[in-house]
Amino acid sequence: MKSVVRRPVWRDGACRPDDLAEEAPVAFEYNGISHAVMLATPADLDDFAIGFSLSEGIVARRLNIFDIHCAESNAGITLQIEIASEDFVRLKARRRSLAGRTGCGLCGTESLDQVMRDLPPLPLAEPFPLAALHAGVRRLPALQVLQQATGATHAACRVDRDGAISHVREDVGRHNALDKTLGALARDGIAAGDSAVVITSRASFEMVQKAAALGVGTLAAVSAPTARAVRLAEGLNITLIGFLRQGACVIYAGSNRMVEFGA
Amino acid sequence: MKSVVRRPVWRDGACRPDDLAEEAPVAFEYNGISHAVMLATPADLDDFAIGFSLSEGIVARRLNIFDIHCAESNAGITLQIEIASEDFVRLKARRRSLAGRTGCGLCGTESLDQVMRDLPPLPLAEPFPLAALHAGVRRLPALQVLQQATGATHAACRVDRDGAISHVREDVGRHNALDKTLGALARDGIAAGDSAVVITSRASFEMVQKAAALGVGTLAAVSAPTARAVRLAEGLNITLIGFLRQGACVIYAGSNRMVEFGA
Repeated sequence: MKSVVRRPVWRDGACRPDDLAEEAPVAFEYNGISHAVMLATPADLDDFAIGFSLSEGIVARRLNIFDIHCAESNAGITLQIEIASEDFVRLKARRRSLAGRTGCGLCGTESLDQVMRDLPPLPLAEPFPLAALHAGVRRLPALQVLQQATGATHAACRVDRDGAISHVREDVGRHNALDKTLGALARDGIAAGDSAVVITSRASFEMVQKAAALGVGTLAAVSAPTARAVRLAEGLNITLIGFLRQGACVIYAGSNRMVEFGA
Repeated sequence: MKSVVRRPVWRDGACRPDDLAEEAPVAFEYNGISHAVMLATPADLDDFAIGFSLSEGIVARRLNIFDIHCAESNAGITLQIEIASEDFVRLKARRRSLAGRTGCGLCGTESLDQVMRDLPPLPLAEPFPLAALHAGVRRLPALQVLQQATGATHAACRVDRDGAISHVREDVGRHNALDKTLGALARDGIAAGDSAVVITSRASFEMVQKAAALGVGTLAAVSAPTARAVRLAEGLNITLIGFLRQGACVIYAGSNRMVEFGA
């Protein structure tokens, strides 16, 4: 399935071809059992499978994912993921205790008590240089290939302490873009603790939770965070930055450490 | 629970108070049975309950919702919704056939076959005047109270054929903002067929599906639609407009009818 589709549209008084972002239903299956269906950009699906499995705590570590098979049908794409039996037993137990209920919006979450996952705070990291973040976010648009073509996708990427960016991934869904970047980092064996992750969207609570699950110490969003995202980031020792644009930004959580460094 | 929270943030070299959008877990319970949990802005929850129930096809009509009770706890908000037994029987049957599975991202959807709902095409409506849409979208920002305070929320509203806007609803989630506006329209007994609905976000497939379920003939997004959203809108006779900004827009579906009218 292609990520970009050309269609005729009506613009400025004329009918002309335009490139649109495809959106495909992607079903996650673990050891043959359906888990969830999400709408996503049909690209970098291996990264998506790895990132989602880790960021949602379905597998404890990258090496517990044994195989990923991508099956396409008219109805959409199924990611058939083989995981370690210890993780599968845990997933089945979580499912069984929830029989007859269904979750939505919060992956694998079926009741209010399960919304907040029990994640340990990260070790306090050395402050991440703001100048590197600004350098990274300046370089990002040129690498958002899908966004340039369609105007419909978010991106996530890694920024290192020198302002270099890598692992840029795009998706019609902001959570998916983050999962793909986190998955790509895990696949390359890059520990996220020393990097910052930049997202072109707002920062919501689940995105902080996903970042924390992979040990990301600094999460920077181009738009605003929610109050719940900020409280969670504070509790987990994640530096959370918003409105990262053209040399300016707002530090919402972890400002003490950033400011020491000279924000 | 308040929709806006004040917190100290670090901006322009100083620590100062800032207003952030709250994000609350909202659980939907139908006749005592858990259905889904979503993160949402804790405002206009009655509209949310009505809009979601109708747009997801859980109830066949507004009058089949007998009661909505909003229960708040430390973990979040539960919307306890009493619906007609005919709808509840249908919901239970849908659930039973899916026992042991859980859905995510697509409300109540647990397998690829269920992603596309079987909605009938809308009757062909008279083209909606583009000038009215432009007038509406010019008036909208002044009414986005939460967005002005926090920069973190989307909005949806109704625009009538004279360019007047009403039923503005805001939420940290774009689907939720749409559901709230659709619910508010249903509560006021306003048939959506003759109105346009404007959303400040992108337009994805599920948003077209939600609009179609309420009979909305024209859906206009401030940002881009996905290709799947466009195909669905075309099939359901919905006029789908994107990049609605400052006197310009792109007509992605239904352009024939719009252009006849003099787009």
